Amino acid sequence: MPGISLRRARTIIRKTMDKGREMGLKPLSVVVVDAGGHVIAFERSDGAPAGRFDIALGKARGCVLMGMTGTQLRDRAEQQAYFVGAAGAALGDKLVPVPGGILVKDAKGRLLGAIGVTGDTSENDLEAGAAGIDAVGLVAEG
Amino acid sequence: MPGISLRRARTIIRKTMDKGREMGLKPLSVVVVDAGGHVIAFERSDGAPAGRFDIALGKARGCVLMGMTGTQLRDRAEQQAYFVGAAGAALGDKLVPVPGGILVKDAKGRLLGAIGVTGDTSENDLEAGAAGIDAVGLVAEG
Amino acid sequence: MPGISLRRARTIIRKTMDKGREMGLKPLSVVVVDAGGHVIAFERSDGAPAGRFDIALGKARGCVLMGMTGTQLRDRAEQQAYFVGAAGAALGDKLVPVPGGILVKDAKGRLLGAIGVTGDTSENDLEAGAAGIDAVGLVAEG
Amino acid sequence: MPGISLRRARTIIRKTMDKGREMGLKPLSVVVVDAGGHVIAFERSDGAPAGRFDIALGKARGCVLMGMTGTQLRDRAEQQAYFVGAAGAALGDKLVPVPGGILVKDAKGRLLGAIGVTGDTSENDLEAGAAGIDAVGLVAEG
Repeated sequence: MPGISLRRARTIIRKTMDKGREMGLKPLSVVVVDAGGHVIAFERSDGAPAGRFDIALGKARGCVLMGMTGTQLRDRAEQQAYFVGAAGAALGDKLVPVPGGILVKDAKGRLLGAIGVTGDTSENDLEAGAAGIDAVGLVAEG
Repeated sequence: MPGISLRRARTIIRKTMDKGREMGLKPLSVVVVDAGGHVIAFERSDGAPAGRFDIALGKARGCVLMGMTGTQLRDRAEQQAYFVGAAGAALGDKLVPVPGGILVKDAKGRLLGAIGVTGDTSENDLEAGAAGIDAVGLVAEG
Repeated sequence: MPGISLRRARTIIRKTMDKGREMGLKPLSVVVVDAGGHVIAFERSDGAPAGRFDIALGKARGCVLMGMTGTQLRDRAEQQAYFVGAAGAALGDKLVPVPGGILVKDAKGRLLGAIGVTGDTSENDLEAGAAGIDAVGLVAEG
Repeated sequence: MPGISLRRARTIIRKTMDKGREMGLKPLSVVVVDAGGHVIAFERSDGAPAGRFDIALGKARGCVLMGMTGTQLRDRAEQQAYFVGAAGAALGDKLVPVPGGILVKDAKGRLLGAIGVTGDTSENDLEAGAAGIDAVGLVAEG
């Protein structure tokens, strides 16, 4: 089964953090999950608040379990907050519906997993994370 | 090691309650947590309702785990209720996004923990708590 | 309704900690709850691990909600672990069945609340906590 | 500020995995948490089962929140399974009481955090993790 190797997950995280520094963002935290929403790798930058793992995981896990990008989840939440809230509860309270949750696909469009980026504005989180996914030759859908 | 000692936590609580009495507020309850959101000290004034601990903790824990003040969390919740609700759930359902959750920093800007004050209006809770933090020479961000 | 005032709760905590130091115990943490299991006051000594609040609360809350001392709960758990485990789950996962959970009664035998002491061996936690309750003229059942 | 920097956390994880390969162990997964039990970094080796994050976190988080090593928690669980089960539930159901949960201290004995290693036998997990902590000049208590 295609998937994201640990080596690639590490590179996605580093390149996302590099991009964040280049953009002048606040300290980022980044999680990479597989197609089942299970954690492959996570790093929290020095100086980031303690609770970053759960927010990052909520972004990534929500995406991959719902098959929607963070942006799509945010748009749906704007229209039907009760639906996204209930879906999050049904999925174990780990669905944070904002940009920065990014689907990871291969060149053939197969879903490999997702990443969750948090630390700055949702839009900046997304831009940094997309650069990280690009850097390993995979396709970001955010 | 930087952090809030029990001695200082006690003083923050007493001075917050003193300020509340001086302002003529309803009986206050005050929690002090460390930078990981773990309780150092808590006191509930006589006459306050039974459930005050969880509200106070939700204010303080939400602040420190998200790295945002209660006022910032309230503003974000006004704009994106679904985001703050989802973040709270992801963090274990202990995030109460209103003023009275106050970050505690040292003079160099390092995050030491947070306090949560509850009992009167959110704005009055904040004013009393900020006075408590000032009284021990630390910096309140509410 | 009779109850434990905040002033008395503070004194119980201080006297418990004083007794712990006198006995040469590791840093103690102490919670005082009312007859409904709701927190009145808590203090964690400097140097104690981060998770002490939940253990202390589990000792105190288990006692008062079950109407049994920590020692009685421990004895019951030795005989019927499945019962105490199930009761704890039914009560919201906050029941830690060992000595150091101590019922607090007045001279007429009325249940006012309970305390939870944690930090050293369960038996030492109990001895220190009983001294704290004695110091305010109330009756400890541990 | 004392604590485990992300740079050091990464090195602990790599050196633990290197040691595991040198010992011929099954693919390891390693988490590093701060003194409040919050995740700094995590990596799951290719070929490890999907659920490794939660097991690793349970080992590390249980240690640091209880102030006990994985070995000490295992010994206590052998004697009083009901106590360790209840404590784990009180702490949010993330406490896995076996070796491989290792406290991380500095040379002065200050608690900085913990790591959780999982993948092979508990004793082998411990040996590999202790080597990772040694590699960054910190003190492992497992």
